[in-house]
Amino acid sequence: MEKIEHIGIAVRSLEQANSVYEKLMGIAPYKSEAVESEGVVTSFFRSGPNKIELLEASNPDSPIAKFIEKRGEGIHHIAFSVTDIRSEMARLREAGFTLLNTEPKFGADNKLVCFVHPRDTTGVLIELCQERE
Amino acid sequence: MEKIEHIGIAVRSLEQANSVYEKLMGIAPYKSEAVESEGVVTSFFRSGPNKIELLEASNPDSPIAKFIEKRGEGIHHIAFSVTDIRSEMARLREAGFTLLNTEPKFGADNKLVCFVHPRDTTGVLIELCQERE
Repeated sequence: MEKIEHIGIAVRSLEQANSVYEKLMGIAPYKSEAVESEGVVTSFFRSGPNKIELLEASNPDSPIAKFIEKRGEGIHHIAFSVTDIRSEMARLREAGFTLLNTEPKFGADNKLVCFVHPRDTTGVLIELCQERE
Repeated sequence: MEKIEHIGIAVRSLEQANSVYEKLMGIAPYKSEAVESEGVVTSFFRSGPNKIELLEASNPDSPIAKFIEKRGEGIHHIAFSVTDIRSEMARLREAGFTLLNTEPKFGADNKLVCFVHPRDTTGVLIELCQERE
């Protein structure tokens, strides 16, 4: 794990949240993207070497919709960048962590991603992400 | 706001959580520190240009104890580094954000800190922190 790639924040309204984070961070989002497989629309803000990803559910079965229903808006996950996601997945599996997908899947922002179950990581949903070529 | 300085994670047991994050991140914490004014003991892991801060309550009135009682373990705050905390506090106050302290206070890791109320920031507790001289 090289560094924190981004922090994912679950929000009810991307439009309203964009306005909040523009005021907070003093910058505009650099892109917006829908990820249909995850049922989300996202926007990204740069913060030095990291990013903040805002996530709004695009359908009621989206994990983001369920998260907000249960806990309200807030931080949803921390993503770490890795250079070789398959070897990192193998290392974590070996160390006893439960992975939420057996194969890397396509995520937002041109990434291959895998999630680690929060019950193994003090309640924190961890994402591994590798830049796609 | 220059970059994400650290992510704060509320944990029940620093000892157990240190072991989890050592396995997850493949590194040991580089320091441990008690912050009596906040009622916490902390440990810090480096992640490239950022840090992960684990926080265990050192007394039952600690904000971390209350957070865990209400929500369980998990991500507690995002800290952004700033060069001039007073001017950043003034800018945010002007922009309509509610600050949780009127003056910067001493935080862990040799910082001056100020918190922004999560009701103004989509449920996310934001910390500003400036390196002390």
